[in-house]
Amino acid sequence: MDRPTLVAEILRKQTFLCIGLDTEAGKLPPSLRGTPDAVFTFNRQIIDATRDLCVAYKPNLAFYEARGAEGWRDLERTVRYIGAQHFIIADAKRGDIGNTSRLYAEAFFQQLPCDALTVAPYMGSDSVAPFLSFPGKWAVLLALTSNAGSADFQQATLADTGAPLWERVVVQAQQWGTPDNLMFVVGATHPQAFVRVRALAPEHFLLVPGIGAQGGDLEALCQHGLTRDVGLLVNASRSILYASSGDDFAAAARAEAQRLQQRMARLLTQRPH
Amino acid sequence: MDRPTLVAEILRKQTFLCIGLDTEAGKLPPSLRGTPDAVFTFNRQIIDATRDLCVAYKPNLAFYEARGAEGWRDLERTVRYIGAQHFIIADAKRGDIGNTSRLYAEAFFQQLPCDALTVAPYMGSDSVAPFLSFPGKWAVLLALTSNAGSADFQQATLADTGAPLWERVVVQAQQWGTPDNLMFVVGATHPQAFVRVRALAPEHFLLVPGIGAQGGDLEALCQHGLTRDVGLLVNASRSILYASSGDDFAAAARAEAQRLQQRMARLLTQRPH
Repeated sequence: MDRPTLVAEILRKQTFLCIGLDTEAGKLPPSLRGTPDAVFTFNRQIIDATRDLCVAYKPNLAFYEARGAEGWRDLERTVRYIGAQHFIIADAKRGDIGNTSRLYAEAFFQQLPCDALTVAPYMGSDSVAPFLSFPGKWAVLLALTSNAGSADFQQATLADTGAPLWERVVVQAQQWGTPDNLMFVVGATHPQAFVRVRALAPEHFLLVPGIGAQGGDLEALCQHGLTRDVGLLVNASRSILYASSGDDFAAAARAEAQRLQQRMARLLTQRPH
Repeated sequence: MDRPTLVAEILRKQTFLCIGLDTEAGKLPPSLRGTPDAVFTFNRQIIDATRDLCVAYKPNLAFYEARGAEGWRDLERTVRYIGAQHFIIADAKRGDIGNTSRLYAEAFFQQLPCDALTVAPYMGSDSVAPFLSFPGKWAVLLALTSNAGSADFQQATLADTGAPLWERVVVQAQQWGTPDNLMFVVGATHPQAFVRVRALAPEHFLLVPGIGAQGGDLEALCQHGLTRDVGLLVNASRSILYASSGDDFAAAARAEAQRLQQRMARLLTQRPH
């Protein structure tokens, strides 16, 4: 999905919600547990219940790989079920030497119909570049993540600029990609960082984890993060998937997604013109 | 596999060779191409031809994921075929928020019988810690990788120490793991770095990619990298797997592995006592 289509979908549906499909077999409602295709069935019902309320879905690969070839099959069925009307982000945090990153890109962009892949920046330019050479496909580069460990290396101060490493990632990666094929991950748990990231990357879309279970504040991050072209995909996973632990999980997920969509519709009216 | 067993196996077999099973369907010899189980059959013949010449095998996940559920099945069959007599490194370069990293650890350490997983450090302590809590299992943390992109962030100078980021990774990670469950990746393309890494981590095992196709020099890295307990696993992938493009690939792989093993046997006599 290209950038104009993504922006148009957000404005049409009045939502920049991304739903994280971090589906754990152990957290399925009682009626699904142990049934064949339980994970795919759960995902299908979540997707059916939320399609009109979000513009993106983001399966985290760990939750599928943990179940081996069977999990990989569930991932394939899930992304094909989502279809081309939503932006699909494979949350894989991949990154390897060039010829190997290219294989990951082929796996997610050609074998699977994903639009974007999260990428870890540590290995540098040739580990990221292969994800930027597929028309209409995106790399979503980790910049400042939502977890406590983001303090360890991402926030280390560099000698030449006096700025933290994550800012170097945001600046340097703009030599490799454009606002049409490169996004950055910035966690909602760092609301003050959105001022800085918008100074460095005024147009790039940001994928924002960390609202919901991790405690980030949607309104605070939007205050500086929203752009004229919206520029944000805000993710919620557990707070939607497991809004109810019972067999009403899909209705509960819809209600939670709708609460977020309504807040987002209000926030969209306040974005810069 | 625990550290004393790994060291004993290296000394018994007189080799610290790790063979990277980066098996590309498109590079298989003519007689195997298009046959059922072609990738697994290739791996099995490579393993049978080299078991006595190496102590570790390292499948890179990208080469299996590129082929979806079928590739994942080949990975499972391959690591089970290798068995418990060799140290198995899943070269996955994973790393995510804590609860997600734990799922990756379960996938590779419990669902699959891998001994170690390569881990990207960018997300910090809570992304690495889950890989360090399985007895007898190892995290292999990226420090200074063999590719050109290692210059972009890994070698950025930090303000407080005046040292590069990769050194911070080596120092800080020693608060999370020990020489019994933590290794570091240091590329053979940076021979001068082995002096520094041994000053910072005198006992940790290093996983060293970059000899063979990438041009690193085995003797140069061993001069400072080898320790009393050996402390090195040196990887070769393409130079062994594709030593011949014909149906004599297994014999050619054995000959190339044997050349490396013989050099390693000589180098082992020169290690510090």
